[in-house]
Amino acid sequence: MFYHIKELQFEAKPDQPNALMAKKLQELIGGQYGEMSVAMQYLFQGWSTRGNSKYKDLLLDIGTEEIGHIEMLATMVARLLDDCPIEDQEAAMKDPAVGAILSGMNPQHAIVSGLGARPSDSVGNPWMGSYIASSGNLLADFRANLNAESQGRLQAVRIYEMTDDQGVKDLLSVLIARDSYHQNQWAAAIAELEEQEGILVPSTFPREKERMDIAYNLYNFSEGEESSTGRWAQGTALDGQGEYQYVQQPKPEGAKPILKPAPLKTHNTLPADMQANTK
Amino acid sequence: MFYHIKELQFEAKPDQPNALMAKKLQELIGGQYGEMSVAMQYLFQGWSTRGNSKYKDLLLDIGTEEIGHIEMLATMVARLLDDCPIEDQEAAMKDPAVGAILSGMNPQHAIVSGLGARPSDSVGNPWMGSYIASSGNLLADFRANLNAESQGRLQAVRIYEMTDDQGVKDLLSVLIARDSYHQNQWAAAIAELEEQEGILVPSTFPREKERMDIAYNLYNFSEGEESSTGRWAQGTALDGQGEYQYVQQPKPEGAKPILKPAPLKTHNTLPADMQANTK
Amino acid sequence: MFYHIKELQFEAKPDQPNALMAKKLQELIGGQYGEMSVAMQYLFQGWSTRGNSKYKDLLLDIGTEEIGHIEMLATMVARLLDDCPIEDQEAAMKDPAVGAILSGMNPQHAIVSGLGARPSDSVGNPWMGSYIASSGNLLADFRANLNAESQGRLQAVRIYEMTDDQGVKDLLSVLIARDSYHQNQWAAAIAELEEQEGILVPSTFPREKERMDIAYNLYNFSEGEESSTGRWAQGTALDGQGEYQYVQQPKPEGAKPILKPAPLKTHNTLPADMQANTK
Amino acid sequence: MFYHIKELQFEAKPDQPNALMAKKLQELIGGQYGEMSVAMQYLFQGWSTRGNSKYKDLLLDIGTEEIGHIEMLATMVARLLDDCPIEDQEAAMKDPAVGAILSGMNPQHAIVSGLGARPSDSVGNPWMGSYIASSGNLLADFRANLNAESQGRLQAVRIYEMTDDQGVKDLLSVLIARDSYHQNQWAAAIAELEEQEGILVPSTFPREKERMDIAYNLYNFSEGEESSTGRWAQGTALDGQGEYQYVQQPKPEGAKPILKPAPLKTHNTLPADMQANTK
Amino acid sequence: MFYHIKELQFEAKPDQPNALMAKKLQELIGGQYGEMSVAMQYLFQGWSTRGNSKYKDLLLDIGTEEIGHIEMLATMVARLLDDCPIEDQEAAMKDPAVGAILSGMNPQHAIVSGLGARPSDSVGNPWMGSYIASSGNLLADFRANLNAESQGRLQAVRIYEMTDDQGVKDLLSVLIARDSYHQNQWAAAIAELEEQEGILVPSTFPREKERMDIAYNLYNFSEGEESSTGRWAQGTALDGQGEYQYVQQPKPEGAKPILKPAPLKTHNTLPADMQANTK
Amino acid sequence: MFYHIKELQFEAKPDQPNALMAKKLQELIGGQYGEMSVAMQYLFQGWSTRGNSKYKDLLLDIGTEEIGHIEMLATMVARLLDDCPIEDQEAAMKDPAVGAILSGMNPQHAIVSGLGARPSDSVGNPWMGSYIASSGNLLADFRANLNAESQGRLQAVRIYEMTDDQGVKDLLSVLIARDSYHQNQWAAAIAELEEQEGILVPSTFPREKERMDIAYNLYNFSEGEESSTGRWAQGTALDGQGEYQYVQQPKPEGAKPILKPAPLKTHNTLPADMQANTK
Repeated sequence: MFYHIKELQFEAKPDQPNALMAKKLQELIGGQYGEMSVAMQYLFQGWSTRGNSKYKDLLLDIGTEEIGHIEMLATMVARLLDDCPIEDQEAAMKDPAVGAILSGMNPQHAIVSGLGARPSDSVGNPWMGSYIASSGNLLADFRANLNAESQGRLQAVRIYEMTDDQGVKDLLSVLIARDSYHQNQWAAAIAELEEQEGILVPSTFPREKERMDIAYNLYNFSEGEESSTGRWAQGTALDGQGEYQYVQQPKPEGAKPILKPAPLKTHNTLPADMQANTK
Repeated sequence: MFYHIKELQFEAKPDQPNALMAKKLQELIGGQYGEMSVAMQYLFQGWSTRGNSKYKDLLLDIGTEEIGHIEMLATMVARLLDDCPIEDQEAAMKDPAVGAILSGMNPQHAIVSGLGARPSDSVGNPWMGSYIASSGNLLADFRANLNAESQGRLQAVRIYEMTDDQGVKDLLSVLIARDSYHQNQWAAAIAELEEQEGILVPSTFPREKERMDIAYNLYNFSEGEESSTGRWAQGTALDGQGEYQYVQQPKPEGAKPILKPAPLKTHNTLPADMQANTK
Repeated sequence: MFYHIKELQFEAKPDQPNALMAKKLQELIGGQYGEMSVAMQYLFQGWSTRGNSKYKDLLLDIGTEEIGHIEMLATMVARLLDDCPIEDQEAAMKDPAVGAILSGMNPQHAIVSGLGARPSDSVGNPWMGSYIASSGNLLADFRANLNAESQGRLQAVRIYEMTDDQGVKDLLSVLIARDSYHQNQWAAAIAELEEQEGILVPSTFPREKERMDIAYNLYNFSEGEESSTGRWAQGTALDGQGEYQYVQQPKPEGAKPILKPAPLKTHNTLPADMQANTK
Repeated sequence: MFYHIKELQFEAKPDQPNALMAKKLQELIGGQYGEMSVAMQYLFQGWSTRGNSKYKDLLLDIGTEEIGHIEMLATMVARLLDDCPIEDQEAAMKDPAVGAILSGMNPQHAIVSGLGARPSDSVGNPWMGSYIASSGNLLADFRANLNAESQGRLQAVRIYEMTDDQGVKDLLSVLIARDSYHQNQWAAAIAELEEQEGILVPSTFPREKERMDIAYNLYNFSEGEESSTGRWAQGTALDGQGEYQYVQQPKPEGAKPILKPAPLKTHNTLPADMQANTK
Repeated sequence: MFYHIKELQFEAKPDQPNALMAKKLQELIGGQYGEMSVAMQYLFQGWSTRGNSKYKDLLLDIGTEEIGHIEMLATMVARLLDDCPIEDQEAAMKDPAVGAILSGMNPQHAIVSGLGARPSDSVGNPWMGSYIASSGNLLADFRANLNAESQGRLQAVRIYEMTDDQGVKDLLSVLIARDSYHQNQWAAAIAELEEQEGILVPSTFPREKERMDIAYNLYNFSEGEESSTGRWAQGTALDGQGEYQYVQQPKPEGAKPILKPAPLKTHNTLPADMQANTK
Repeated sequence: MFYHIKELQFEAKPDQPNALMAKKLQELIGGQYGEMSVAMQYLFQGWSTRGNSKYKDLLLDIGTEEIGHIEMLATMVARLLDDCPIEDQEAAMKDPAVGAILSGMNPQHAIVSGLGARPSDSVGNPWMGSYIASSGNLLADFRANLNAESQGRLQAVRIYEMTDDQGVKDLLSVLIARDSYHQNQWAAAIAELEEQEGILVPSTFPREKERMDIAYNLYNFSEGEESSTGRWAQGTALDGQGEYQYVQQPKPEGAKPILKPAPLKTHNTLPADMQANTK
């Protein structure tokens, strides 16, 4: 069960309106690695966690925090759209500087959302449930989380570099710091789980059931030997259970697949030598 | 530039047809973490890598391998659909065992693809470009890759447990082994990069520009203290640059946001005290 | 800013596991009119409300409540999936009753989410940001909200009729009651706004700018006169500003559109009489 | 069965080409609340109406009208794209005014559709079947329709304010007038149904089956009391069957959910105290 | 402008209800090659045709016909869902034959659409605007149309083979016949255009601007020589302007691409030899 | 199984960076008819081909070639984004020429992909599996392929006309030439199949099962007789099995559909005359 207070956790006020920045910040709201994604990802993971109350609590702590991040960004976007000219745009565009902004802004900010944020990314794709991961396996999911915080901080940092608006920078410096913590934090949780389970997800599958003879091979499918010099191509594997091998010339083990002709009533194309019979 | 040979890298032959297994295996072809995802993810990352030829070669080695994985699974799906009854299904359903299979199979396998694989997941969602990550930052992307291989192996293992078809198990034991290697391999590549750059992505952003005072805090937004006992809530952070803090009662730093009324011509709802003026 | 407590607002415990019911309940989580939709719709509306703090507070009250509804349903789905057989499904399907359940269940519940809820609807479509409305105009949006609560209660009621599991019915009887209140509540909010503004959205557009001569006409485009007997075809319009008219035989006012040929370099098909010139 | 005549119901001729306006008008063709949505929504509702021929006729009258609205807008878009420079754009962009237009236009209008309209919105998202509602319950659906006409008129009005092209304004003044009628008309149909059935959708569910003790409560989940002053928080509810209650401090009725551990073969993360057993 | 009459062009009455057939027929309504696709494809092409009134008229004739096809199928689906048990499904499933139907049916037919058709395909994917083609080039688009009618007839024929319901067969025999005509008709229109323009789309691009030295080569990228025996690998090309060539061993003409390092502020991974400078 | 070499089949170097051209070229990578579509379409068709090794080999030859086309375009996009200003964009936009480029570029190229290509089209829609066709019927699919190559060449040609960058033109002249060959090649394969099977897809369905009396009719659903003058309206049909007929005034053969009322527990709106009974 959730409660809300009206105060923002951190301030979200630009120095001045800027419809192009509003468009860019949408990536951090509704993009693949935006705040909607991390909020929903952590909450679904938390709600589905079976046992493991320490991790469940952690997921729900952070999932709840992230809803507040959407809130701060939505507030920022609304303020960046203050005074955005709905009317008489065609006249206004005679000024080239104004023209560049009006032609580049997200038209849905004016037409659809009435100067409010959208649940979409910076090019207008709606946020999708298929952006998130929640598998029931915490080590797998914490890796998804570490990735999300890495991509998210990278994007926030890039937008930070684009702007000279101190208010926008102030909010981004908060989000960047939180993404730093969340990387530090998922990395710690991953280390804890890997210590218990080893590095392979899932740890519970008996390894004798997999093809162990090919489980440490790097196949050189792209000509050139540079990849053979990495740690992943020689020495004991990180899981401690095998030796990395570099396979310079990968060969097929399987045969050419010949598929059985489909029955006539599929109306597939029949093999040429069967066609006589059907006429 | 790519070349193809007709032989499969590994065999892909079920012991017998099974339309329900064909439907499940679609998750490994066109699901969020299926082979289309890893193939495209590694290739786009490889094509976009600037410098770093060792990693570029690695990405292209594995991306190329993964196209062959789609091929093996597509072959397996086609064979699992052999003899699938297109005609007279309604009569056939009078047998309950047949009925359960026909009602549960993916109808597009019969109607749309003519007993071939689809570029879709196990419930029929088409594969989407938004499943993949390619950011230009290799540490971020290798974390995406480690996650993808973790989720992918988890899914393959779950399907392995469902079946007693030895041919299907044989192919899955290959895919599981390759996912093992790829976890071992991305983990090694990540270790190499983290040693150089530290654990925070991106490493190149000057940390004094972020809000360092909040960059190590765990906020207790979900009531209950279990999360405070983790490694992420105490001691020196994994990045070595701060001390984890547990904030038992998070307080807002920002104010309640009051948004400026929109201009009349947005035709937004006006604040009640401004409405008199517009009538 | 948001806070969470672990207790559910209402209990969410089925009498027994049921993977088919888990699949159906996904409609109420991630469907077009599920709880993800109303939660996000009310929060985005609330965050974007300019002035009008009474409505803003209301939106945030209810948006926050709805996140808790997702939580209760996600918990219910996880419990309905307890004991769901991952392994040896093919053997289990020899029992027809089990076969019907296994063939009908959502395969992603077993393969992808590890017996947890998915951010998707009952056929597996991921939730999308394009399901929600947030326009800046509260009367428009409250109509969207009343619609959402109407469709949502209808769906919950239909699922209620399908089941004989008392635990599922108990949760649905809560959700149905809340949808009742929310209909009652948005209807009251709409009445309040319509009293102030009239019934046309937006109320701020000067009506003399629209084609008032056609603003009260029902055009009989589908042969048959039944629609002419409704209130919308005669008498004073509900907005009080015109008389409804029934137009028995609608006639075109515009001409046949003749489009100008495209320049050669669009490589469109040229009109036949221009083609000679380009060869 | 449908018939078509070539004449447009109303004229659709801009004063001059304008590729940016063409992009904006796409929202009214293929957006969430564009003409494709209302056309398909009314037709699917009409085709699915069981009995109730008065409403069925109405739905088919208006659904048929709306196909003609797509036609007028598609014609307008094609004309706004007349003379749009496909060739030598890079040279043309040296003029800043031209540059603003070319950089802001929808590139698919030039590359993909050859200066014709697209079945997409103003940022290029394709129209989707999931935009529409058709539930079998006419009161629910008429609320969806009233919402669609409200959002649609709002968007048309906003675009009207942006332009000074009299031809575009003329078409918009027609569409705005029709949206006025359709609001007036759905409101009348809703009033008629509510008089028969009451305001709750669906009216046929026995209310004693829902949790009537919570069916009139406004829960104060977002701190602040402003919402308590509304009509929805006091007095007899609009449905006449209960009294609105304001719950100042909502308390949970349910317990903390503890989920049962998943079987080993799901390969979920096991609760810590069970992990010893699996090694 | 469009008109509608209530009569169906052809009858649409199943012999008896069948929820599984209702699900399958959705492919013909809202699938990639269903009737929504051809209706919208022909109408958008027709509305965008510049000059060429013979083709424009043809497109609008057939586009209008296809809306009536959606109508017939939507009617058929609604009737196939007559008597579909909404209530007490769990009890009903104790009968295995009923169980197979209830577990296999589209749950949205019961929960969402109230026994009406959905704008979706047979696995529930909503119809999308991106299914259609409308390019401004009629020869290109007529090829899209011929493909759509080929795929559409193939799907209808496959469903015909599945059923023994004479009413369903009767409607399908109509749709199959119309798809026959439409193949015959687009083939004739294509022949007419190819005679005028030649077979290459677009015909208006000066061929000396393309790399004519490689414009007739079949590259043997997949090992095996079977494809070399086709008409496309020898003799004069169908366009009459070159000789087909079979290139047994394709060789690269380009260099290995080395991408320029990105500026520091993209926060991409820097090439290893540049990293020293940034610390 | 696939192999890769690092060399590009053809060079992919622009004369100079150009972020707007990078955005446009995305259409050829991840658009409906871009290289991802043809690569995946041909590979899925090839992998699913049953027998017919000549066509299977052809499909795999060309599918493999097309992966290399994505690679060349991804390389070109990365180079067009060289030196793209991530930082200080707001200052840079004071120059109108720079402003037009920065406001028009794809913001995800800077924020998300770090100056690399995206698996998306020119307006940012992610590539989708639902773009491709693979039906098991080769004649149907080769028509899909001919269409794809026609639309693809058309788009490439349009972009060619827009640019004056010789490096971009050089790559496009390669892609245009390959699209020429592929049109020539699919046309030849189609001719071969049509000679064997006739022009109707599928050829294996017994024609007496379709409504032959309506299988050659052009219905004049859009007023105006221009379409009656085409080859498709008179003379022997191209399939040689009937005579084209022009039906000047199409009449319905079916009745007005009256749908049976739904059971009470669907909670559909009841027909007015049944409502008394339920109260």
